[in-house]
Amino acid sequence: MFTQSELKKMVNKAILNLSYNEEAEKLNDPVKYILSIGGKRLRPVLALMACNLYSDKIDEAVIPATGLEVFHNFTLVHDDIMDNAPVRRNVPTVHSKWNINQAVLSGDVMAFISNECFLQTSSRYLLKVFKVFNKAAIEVCVGQQLDIDFEKAAIVSIEEYLRMIELKTAALLAASAKIGAIMGGADDKDSELLYEFGRNLGMAFQIQDDLLDIYGDIKVFGKIMGGDIISNKKTFMLVKALEIASFEQARQIHELFSLKDFDPDTKVKKVVRIYDQLNIKSISESLASDYINSAFELLERLDAPKERKTELSGIANSLIGRNN
Amino acid sequence: MFTQSELKKMVNKAILNLSYNEEAEKLNDPVKYILSIGGKRLRPVLALMACNLYSDKIDEAVIPATGLEVFHNFTLVHDDIMDNAPVRRNVPTVHSKWNINQAVLSGDVMAFISNECFLQTSSRYLLKVFKVFNKAAIEVCVGQQLDIDFEKAAIVSIEEYLRMIELKTAALLAASAKIGAIMGGADDKDSELLYEFGRNLGMAFQIQDDLLDIYGDIKVFGKIMGGDIISNKKTFMLVKALEIASFEQARQIHELFSLKDFDPDTKVKKVVRIYDQLNIKSISESLASDYINSAFELLERLDAPKERKTELSGIANSLIGRNN
Repeated sequence: MFTQSELKKMVNKAILNLSYNEEAEKLNDPVKYILSIGGKRLRPVLALMACNLYSDKIDEAVIPATGLEVFHNFTLVHDDIMDNAPVRRNVPTVHSKWNINQAVLSGDVMAFISNECFLQTSSRYLLKVFKVFNKAAIEVCVGQQLDIDFEKAAIVSIEEYLRMIELKTAALLAASAKIGAIMGGADDKDSELLYEFGRNLGMAFQIQDDLLDIYGDIKVFGKIMGGDIISNKKTFMLVKALEIASFEQARQIHELFSLKDFDPDTKVKKVVRIYDQLNIKSISESLASDYINSAFELLERLDAPKERKTELSGIANSLIGRNN
Repeated sequence: MFTQSELKKMVNKAILNLSYNEEAEKLNDPVKYILSIGGKRLRPVLALMACNLYSDKIDEAVIPATGLEVFHNFTLVHDDIMDNAPVRRNVPTVHSKWNINQAVLSGDVMAFISNECFLQTSSRYLLKVFKVFNKAAIEVCVGQQLDIDFEKAAIVSIEEYLRMIELKTAALLAASAKIGAIMGGADDKDSELLYEFGRNLGMAFQIQDDLLDIYGDIKVFGKIMGGDIISNKKTFMLVKALEIASFEQARQIHELFSLKDFDPDTKVKKVVRIYDQLNIKSISESLASDYINSAFELLERLDAPKERKTELSGIANSLIGRNN
């Protein structure tokens, strides 16, 4: 059985071995850049862990799993354009290092590099795996659209917010776990359970990600603290705060989020003060824990040896209390 | 045997029947818009013609062929962003009607809608067809990169220019014909011949497209005449003109293409005057004809009944002398 760190190494090796059409070097430079600046490789690692639950022979699954990482990074490159984000993982985003056109085009080619990876799926599983991936890919786009729509919406319900992150973040993690299960030879029941496992993990992950924007450490997390507040992004914390705030607190939040000219630090501090009054941090952590607990329950129900499940529960555990 | 117009109708029907994830309507509006503003549906029609050379049962090929059109329109949406183009086919481009972010995201989802179409390829041909498509998709990105690179390059050779359009335009037409052949049950030899047929068609098509920018009729063609000259785009005409121009003509061309402030009409007229002195129109037409003739020769060599080839030669013929 492989550990998380062994799987991550396999994925990193596969990323380095990706083959490129090198006729226009400039096209691939941003691709290599975004794929080289690290990250947890959570999606392919999750896929390989799910695969490894059922099979010791995971080598055939490495390249398709790597397709999940390439796809994920494609969405990061394009989302960063849409979010006008200057920095990711402590380094300039592709469109700030190059320009928007280059980020559009190099992003595009990544979509087809990820296809290329999925086309290397063992023929037994090719259609099944590709369909799961492609459904998730479309859902990620739908989630990104809802995220953009929400930016302009005055009020977003908790339900709407959770559905948005389900599509934008959780769908791909769910698909990753399911794809791994399929490639490991799991039956339909277990493949679906792993889909749900990944979905719950994804929900917890995104809520934690929202929390880390405020309570994370910039050196570790690589983002400006409170960046979501500065850019008026709808987060779980904001949506929840507006749901439970008093009339006066809600008025203050709306006022802070409608300022045109403001000192970023002051805005962040004032918003966080209200969040703290409303106990938003622990409400968020508690919801993230609920999702992680559901993930654990799903893991229990899998028809795989208990000792094989340790890596997947490890990844779930690391999400609670993670700081990057 | 189906005629071009029957095939176009089938494709248009399949486009109308595409299934969308409707959870975020705004995502699909630009997709439906770009797919509804017409066009010749050249790529899927070519694929279905190639298929119909070998098989009367082409219905299974319609949806994968439609994937070629969805992919092509995805590249149009993103290319129009990069080219800063306000108008396509007489209507506003997606990024001018909506905005750049929407054009990026709605373009992205089209890449996965085209995947969805290819995933409906009959299982016998799925892997083969998808690989041909995906290789072309990457080549289209490489071609677009070279096109962008050439905009900044002082000198582009004819050879470099032709390679660029081979990737950007001809590769997808080549892949379309080959994919159709595969789905019709053609052998490897004929599939390759049809690839070459499509490639030659694509080269002719792009050279004609360059010509039409100047010598086309705006009402028919839907573009500003001389738009490529106004935007300093490298075209076959420009590259050829610079190759054969006298020292003085070349100096004038470089001067005209380096003007920062200019009256568009005057610039176009002056450039076209030099093109006319150099006989660029007939040189271009003659090269396009050479490619079309090669396409005819390839058609001859196909192991399919002569009478079955009439639609494909019709499409090749219509390219010479086409005015839209």
